[in-house]
Amino acid sequence: MTDATQITLASRPQGKPSTDNFKLQTATLPAVQDGQILVRVICLSLDPYMRGRMDDAKSYAKPVEIGEVMEGGAVAEVMESRNTDFKPGQIVVGAFGWTSHAISDGEGVRVVDPEQAPISTALGVLGMPGITAWVGLNDIGRAKDGETIVVSAATGAVGGVVGQLAKARNMRVIGVAGGPEKCAFAVEELGYDVCLDHHDHDAKSLSAAIKDAAPDGVDVYFESVGGKTLEAVLTRMNTHGRIALCGMIAWYSGQGVADAQPLPAVWRNILTRRLLVEGFIIFDHYHKFPDFVGQVAPMVADGTVKFREDVAEGLENAPQAFLDMLSGGNFGKQLVRVGADPA
Amino acid sequence: MTDATQITLASRPQGKPSTDNFKLQTATLPAVQDGQILVRVICLSLDPYMRGRMDDAKSYAKPVEIGEVMEGGAVAEVMESRNTDFKPGQIVVGAFGWTSHAISDGEGVRVVDPEQAPISTALGVLGMPGITAWVGLNDIGRAKDGETIVVSAATGAVGGVVGQLAKARNMRVIGVAGGPEKCAFAVEELGYDVCLDHHDHDAKSLSAAIKDAAPDGVDVYFESVGGKTLEAVLTRMNTHGRIALCGMIAWYSGQGVADAQPLPAVWRNILTRRLLVEGFIIFDHYHKFPDFVGQVAPMVADGTVKFREDVAEGLENAPQAFLDMLSGGNFGKQLVRVGADPA
Repeated sequence: MTDATQITLASRPQGKPSTDNFKLQTATLPAVQDGQILVRVICLSLDPYMRGRMDDAKSYAKPVEIGEVMEGGAVAEVMESRNTDFKPGQIVVGAFGWTSHAISDGEGVRVVDPEQAPISTALGVLGMPGITAWVGLNDIGRAKDGETIVVSAATGAVGGVVGQLAKARNMRVIGVAGGPEKCAFAVEELGYDVCLDHHDHDAKSLSAAIKDAAPDGVDVYFESVGGKTLEAVLTRMNTHGRIALCGMIAWYSGQGVADAQPLPAVWRNILTRRLLVEGFIIFDHYHKFPDFVGQVAPMVADGTVKFREDVAEGLENAPQAFLDMLSGGNFGKQLVRVGADPA
Repeated sequence: MTDATQITLASRPQGKPSTDNFKLQTATLPAVQDGQILVRVICLSLDPYMRGRMDDAKSYAKPVEIGEVMEGGAVAEVMESRNTDFKPGQIVVGAFGWTSHAISDGEGVRVVDPEQAPISTALGVLGMPGITAWVGLNDIGRAKDGETIVVSAATGAVGGVVGQLAKARNMRVIGVAGGPEKCAFAVEELGYDVCLDHHDHDAKSLSAAIKDAAPDGVDVYFESVGGKTLEAVLTRMNTHGRIALCGMIAWYSGQGVADAQPLPAVWRNILTRRLLVEGFIIFDHYHKFPDFVGQVAPMVADGTVKFREDVAEGLENAPQAFLDMLSGGNFGKQLVRVGADPA
């Protein structure tokens, strides 16, 4: 029997979540059954979608129930296996949750090659955020070489990859991020042509700044924030532009909803500019993982695609790190170090 | 020299337009130059897009200036030709405007075959509304045989064709229209499976009625109204559904804008249901006219696609007929009889 340290959902947030919505507990896991594996978690991923799981609203995935372990992807080491697909000592990535140890039937669990890249990249640039960027740019954004793209959350786990993949396609790449440090990083490290600090702008001045940065207009908008960034970019979209709608973090906790621009203005823009707006959820595209890894892993290996991680130490600090991430306090892919690297 | 009776834009409307925004005048046309034709208008088309041309706002086409003849498509007879593409006596369709006579350089003017169908259909089921329906259903709506579609303005010049083309593809076809007469016509004449009267509903009850009418959900929404119909349909869209955005007549004159549902709710629906929303303007698709006519003219000839016209008599009555159309008072394609049929 193994004891697991876990973080569960203690209560549903009203608006902005707080650490009171989470509970740290210890639970004894049952014995491993036929077909199952026991893993110890090394590294947990924190992602904006988790905010949605805390609510009881109808969404593309069912909510986490009160008292359940918070959902989340993690890199882990297989400790015990009664599943022929896995061997003890292997590094795997899967939806193990906010926990130190987990039992899994192996569904949705992938083996990670530690020789290819640092194992934590299986949660970032070579994991869900990376494939989200790749699908969003190519399949949803329908990007063409040489076009102009605006990337919101430009240095985030997803946005940072979108910008670099776009740059590799000779696109003009305009980022929007929060704070001078992130903007400098976007330009100096990630290769953005321009990065605009949304703290300096309201929707109107952001629109003017995008006009300066993208004199030929915007062909693709990688949209994960909503709010004033969306409002500003909409005024700069070219005819037949595309919006890949991947998230709306500015509105996840109900802030800013009352200040959002009116729907008819947005609808009018979509109509008169003949825009294509497509929402996507990366789970629908997981069958593309081999193509994605085949194309992007070499770009990570040769430094074309760089990555940055923001690591909180210890599972007990995951709630605060999650809250910080929701308000833009992280810088790079947000991870939580839960256990030691493999020997 | 020919005198033309014309209707010009006298002033820009503040909100709902009125007959005061138009002016009836007589003007003497200049002599026909090399490359030009002189036509006499037989039949003028009135269309919702004209409302947009009355405003000074940035749109996909430039506004009509104060004192200019109102823009509009019309069927006409060639009276005099100094253009080798046209001969006197031919019936043509083109953007001749709200006028009894016009001089044109022939650009965008098509010759109409009076043997194929009544010449007025070149303004309706075999003209711009018809190709709008055909492109919106197939290319923008990406309809598949057997899917479920909701068509707003179900008996309108465009909607009526969408519904019939969808029925011919074995789709389940739900219309939304204003008033019991239109709804009965949609079902009995056009073959809709169900037609819902939006006068009987708010957004919530309309959503419930759509649920009853489309128990498997909605795959395609042909959207030309905005307002509560959009709000209701959004709640019934299936995952990977498509919205072909062709207009937003409920909001054209500023009514209902303040009551529109909040943008974040719409954005959330697009994201979680992975919807594709695409705006389109039919002028971008005019190169498809031969394919469209080739496919749909036989369906008009054999009665698969029926049409209904609402004809106002006399150019001087065009402004009132236009206002009536904007508030849903017409029934069928709105035309104005300007001159006699050819001998």
